[in-house]
Amino acid sequence: MRLSRDQIDQLDKHYRTHFINAITGFKSANLVGTVSASGHTNLAVISSVVHVGAHPPLNAMVFRPHSVSRDTLENILATGHYSLNHIHGGMVAKAHQTSARYPREQSEFAATGLGEAWIGDFPAPFVAEARIRIGMGYREHRHLAINDTVLVIGEVLLVEVPDDCVAATGHLDLDRAGTLAINGLDGYHETRQLARLAYAKPDREPRAL
Amino acid sequence: MRLSRDQIDQLDKHYRTHFINAITGFKSANLVGTVSASGHTNLAVISSVVHVGAHPPLNAMVFRPHSVSRDTLENILATGHYSLNHIHGGMVAKAHQTSARYPREQSEFAATGLGEAWIGDFPAPFVAEARIRIGMGYREHRHLAINDTVLVIGEVLLVEVPDDCVAATGHLDLDRAGTLAINGLDGYHETRQLARLAYAKPDREPRAL
Repeated sequence: MRLSRDQIDQLDKHYRTHFINAITGFKSANLVGTVSASGHTNLAVISSVVHVGAHPPLNAMVFRPHSVSRDTLENILATGHYSLNHIHGGMVAKAHQTSARYPREQSEFAATGLGEAWIGDFPAPFVAEARIRIGMGYREHRHLAINDTVLVIGEVLLVEVPDDCVAATGHLDLDRAGTLAINGLDGYHETRQLARLAYAKPDREPRAL
Repeated sequence: MRLSRDQIDQLDKHYRTHFINAITGFKSANLVGTVSASGHTNLAVISSVVHVGAHPPLNAMVFRPHSVSRDTLENILATGHYSLNHIHGGMVAKAHQTSARYPREQSEFAATGLGEAWIGDFPAPFVAEARIRIGMGYREHRHLAINDTVLVIGEVLLVEVPDDCVAATGHLDLDRAGTLAINGLDGYHETRQLARLAYAKPDREPRAL
């Protein structure tokens, strides 16, 4: 099936939303935990977290400021901190349920039954059930006028991973951690490592590690 | 294992690179195809493509302008077009090999043996072996001074997907297409759908589709 831009623009709205959300491939599966200035906790699925750099450790995510995730964005800008928590199979239904449009004063932790965890004095809530958790500090945001979205860039301040998921090389075993991948708006996928490939060099054939 | 920011900064450089590249979760697995103003084709693995919006259909990706992908960025800015091609298991070794530092005038298509495909009069090359392919038009870029990277935003101009991978609802079956997910710098993972979940509402329990 081949679609031109004109044909894409003429698609039924829901069809187009599912289709375009999936064509870029798999997305990271995280819950972002925040707290408002007045102390209300908030939890939201986010599939747009993307690696930006390792030194300093930075990542970014895209928000639609007028969507259900507007509270999350406001909390990040108000408090300067947030958590990222990998979604695994054992918590996927509750994680997805955080995307329902709850009233602002209702915490998605309480509403979905996911546990609120605080690590040391880090000022944002983590998900108790998650195995890989990152404490993030807000650095900057950019308004993308092209479609009225906001790119939020943050730095990693704290990381927690299960000991048996980290190799001596620093590689993370995301399969073992049960971390899922997201397809489109509503698909959650398990993974299995097919290959790990050596650093590529022009004069060498591809080589599995 | 819990690491503070100080401990992360003190990690061995290679350890930190692998670790931080993996902690955000799975990434999309694409090859970006471009051609230079002088007609040299180029192909590069990119794991940072992220959905930005469906209407208009937009996505973004992060480049390190001084890395091996600098030719790709230059080509996009020079010609205004590029292709995104999902990486599947049958092409993963050749796809990874495009990340080797080939001389500028050597095409990664020829060097790795991946086929160069042209669709209609679209002005960027696609990967013949790929099953899901997107023709992209450059829209804008933002320099992220925080770590000297560049965010490139483009719009979808053309999409090609196998007929048997598209549902009547617009959902894409990425498992069937064999689309992989990337873990860190060198891990390629197969996927299997665990659940597809209905649009979440506050007064309704999570429900599988």
